[in-house]
Amino acid sequence: MNDSANRRIEALRKILRAEGEGAGGILVASVANVTYLTGFTGDSSVLLVLPDRAIVVSDGRYTEQLERECPGLECHIRPVGQALYVGVAEVAGRLGLQSLAFESASLTVAEYQVLKDQIASVETRPTRGWVERLRMVKDGNELAMIRESISLAERSFVQMRDGLNFGQTEKDLADNLEFAMRRAGASGSAFPPILAIGANAALPHYRPGTVAKVGDSDFLLVDWGAVGPTGYRSDLTRMIVTGKFTDHFTRVYNAVLEAQSQAISAIRPGRTAGEVNAKARASLNDAGLGQYFTHGLGHGFGLEIHEMPFMGRDPDVRLEPGMVLTVEPGVYLPGWGGIRIEDDVLVTSDGVEVLTSLPRDLSSTLRPV
Amino acid sequence: MNDSANRRIEALRKILRAEGEGAGGILVASVANVTYLTGFTGDSSVLLVLPDRAIVVSDGRYTEQLERECPGLECHIRPVGQALYVGVAEVAGRLGLQSLAFESASLTVAEYQVLKDQIASVETRPTRGWVERLRMVKDGNELAMIRESISLAERSFVQMRDGLNFGQTEKDLADNLEFAMRRAGASGSAFPPILAIGANAALPHYRPGTVAKVGDSDFLLVDWGAVGPTGYRSDLTRMIVTGKFTDHFTRVYNAVLEAQSQAISAIRPGRTAGEVNAKARASLNDAGLGQYFTHGLGHGFGLEIHEMPFMGRDPDVRLEPGMVLTVEPGVYLPGWGGIRIEDDVLVTSDGVEVLTSLPRDLSSTLRPV
Repeated sequence: MNDSANRRIEALRKILRAEGEGAGGILVASVANVTYLTGFTGDSSVLLVLPDRAIVVSDGRYTEQLERECPGLECHIRPVGQALYVGVAEVAGRLGLQSLAFESASLTVAEYQVLKDQIASVETRPTRGWVERLRMVKDGNELAMIRESISLAERSFVQMRDGLNFGQTEKDLADNLEFAMRRAGASGSAFPPILAIGANAALPHYRPGTVAKVGDSDFLLVDWGAVGPTGYRSDLTRMIVTGKFTDHFTRVYNAVLEAQSQAISAIRPGRTAGEVNAKARASLNDAGLGQYFTHGLGHGFGLEIHEMPFMGRDPDVRLEPGMVLTVEPGVYLPGWGGIRIEDDVLVTSDGVEVLTSLPRDLSSTLRPV
Repeated sequence: MNDSANRRIEALRKILRAEGEGAGGILVASVANVTYLTGFTGDSSVLLVLPDRAIVVSDGRYTEQLERECPGLECHIRPVGQALYVGVAEVAGRLGLQSLAFESASLTVAEYQVLKDQIASVETRPTRGWVERLRMVKDGNELAMIRESISLAERSFVQMRDGLNFGQTEKDLADNLEFAMRRAGASGSAFPPILAIGANAALPHYRPGTVAKVGDSDFLLVDWGAVGPTGYRSDLTRMIVTGKFTDHFTRVYNAVLEAQSQAISAIRPGRTAGEVNAKARASLNDAGLGQYFTHGLGHGFGLEIHEMPFMGRDPDVRLEPGMVLTVEPGVYLPGWGGIRIEDDVLVTSDGVEVLTSLPRDLSSTLRPV
C-alpha cells in the first residue's frame, strides 16, 4: 500500500467514526471506490475497511495483480466456487463484526440477500457517498492523470477533425475518434462519443448513426473523452462548422460561449455549485435562450465520467481547491440542432484553472470540407 | 409492439402466473431484459409487466426512440427531477398493485429503498432469472443477428491477423481489432478483447499490455467478439503461431482441439450442460491435462456476453433447440502460456450446428511474422 492509499483509507475511517453510528466497518463495493482506496484496477473485488485493518476480498485471477498494485494489502482470495458475498461474510464473521456499514448504491438486492443470509446476526447499515465525497477533491497524482487524459482527448480530436470529409457518417467519425484515442495511448473512450450532425445535435444524449453525413448540415457537435492508461477520464465538447456560419449559429454559439465564460469566472473556493450554475443560466436568460438550456451546468469527473458534485443537482456543495469539473452549457433547438461547449476546470486555492486547451472562440470552429 | 415482443411478454406472464405466488406484476429492471421484451435499445428505463398491461418507465430523452422502436407500448415518461424508482412507484400505485415481483439482481439496495419508501404497502417479492430463462432459447431473428455478429468478428480477425508485425504490442493488436470490427459495422467489442502473447496467455482473463511484443514468443492468444448493430454479440478464441510450432505447443493444441471436438459432438437436445462439460474434461484428463482446464466449458450469449446456461455452473440445464453456446476448453500452464479454442454453436432439433467458420486445425494457426 502506498502513501496515498493509506491516506485515503484513513480519511474513510474518519467518516466511519463520525457517521457510522458505531458500525465496526464499512464494505466498499463500488469498483471505482475500491480502485481509489487501494490502487487495485481489477474488478469483482470488494474492500472491508475496519478501524485497524483493510482487507480486499477477491479471487484467484487477481492474486498476482493485487501483489503488484497494492503490496502489503491484506487479501482474502476466494476459493473457486465461493460466491463473492459468501467470501465477504466469511471474512466479516472471522473478524467478529457486530455491525457493518455498506455501500447501498453498489450492492444489488440479490447480493445483499446472499450476504445477509450468511451473517444474519450482523447488523447492516446502508450508506451512500462516503468515498464519493472524498473523491471530489483530487490530489496531485490524480490531477496529473486527468491532465494526461485531457491531452490524449485533445490530440485525438484534432486528428479526427483534420480528417473530416464529405460523406462520413456520425458513426465513422465516432469510430475514428475512438481509434485515434487508443492509438494515442488511451485505454478507450470515457463514454460512447456523441457525434451529432445538424438537427441531431438537439438531443443532448444522441447516439451516432449511419444516416446523417458530413455536409448534410452546416455543423456538427462532438462530445468525447478518453480513459487514460491509469483509468482517469476527460470530457469535452466542441462544435465544428463544416459549411457556412449562419447568423443564427453565430448568435447561439456566442451566447453559449458567453454563458460558459461567466460560469468559469464565477468559480472559486467557497462558491456553491448552485451559484455557478445560476451564472450560466442568467447569462442564457439574458440572451433569451434560458429555456433551451435543459440540463445542469456540469459535473465532477475522475475515475468515473460522472462524479460529485453535480452542479445542477447538488446546488449546496461548496467548491473546494482540487475539485475538477466540466463546465458545459448548451442550447437545444428541436429541429435545428444544439450547441454545447464543454471544458474541464480545476478549482484552485484562489480561483480556477482551465485544464483544456483546445480553442473555443467562434472562428476556431470553422473547418470547411 | 411487434409480434416477437408480444410473444415474449406473454411467455413472461406465464412464468408470473406459475411462480409469482400471486404477485400482480413483475418489475423488469435489467437493461438487456427490457430490450429483449420490448425492442427498446435505450437505457435508464424499466418495464412493469402486469397480466393485461405492459408499461415502460422512461424519461424525456427517450420519448422519440420509444415511439420508433416500440410503437404502441404504454409509457410513463418521468417529469424532469423525478427519480426512476419514484416514477415506478407512481405507476405501481396508480395501478393499485397489492404485490409486485422484482428482479433482485438488477436493483441496487438504494434503488429498492427508494421504491419501498414510496410504496410501503405493496408487498415486494425478489425474483431472479425469469427473463434470462426465456432468453436462453433464441428465435430466428435473434439467430440471424448472432450470425451477423459472428461474421463481423471473423472478418475483423482475419484483417488484424494479416496485419501482424514484429514489434506490435498486445494493446496495438487489441486496438486494431476493435477498430476493424467497428469499421465492419459493429457498434464495438462484445468485451475488452484478450490479446495475450506467450506466457501471458496462461491467465484466462488477461488484459492486453504494452510490454510484450509480437515475436517475443512463438504464439499468441486472441479472445474477442463483436456487438452487432442490433446489440447481439459473438465470442471466439483463436491461437496464432508467429514463430515455430514446438512439440509442446502441438501436443497441447491438439489435446484442446480434441476436447472441443468431443464436446461439440456431444451437444444435442436433451443432453445436460454438465454432460457436455464432462466430455471435454474427460478428453483433457486422458491427455493428462485436465488439471490445467480451470474454468467451465462455455456459456450462452446473445444480448449479453455471458448468459445462461453456464456449462460449468449450471450442470443440470437440459439443452434445447435454439440455445446458442460457446464451446471453449482451455489449458493454462503458468510460465509457459495457455491455449484456448472457442467456437459458437447452435443446438438444433437433432444435434448441433457450428456457427463460427474460421478454421481451427493446427496448421491454420500458423502466421509467421
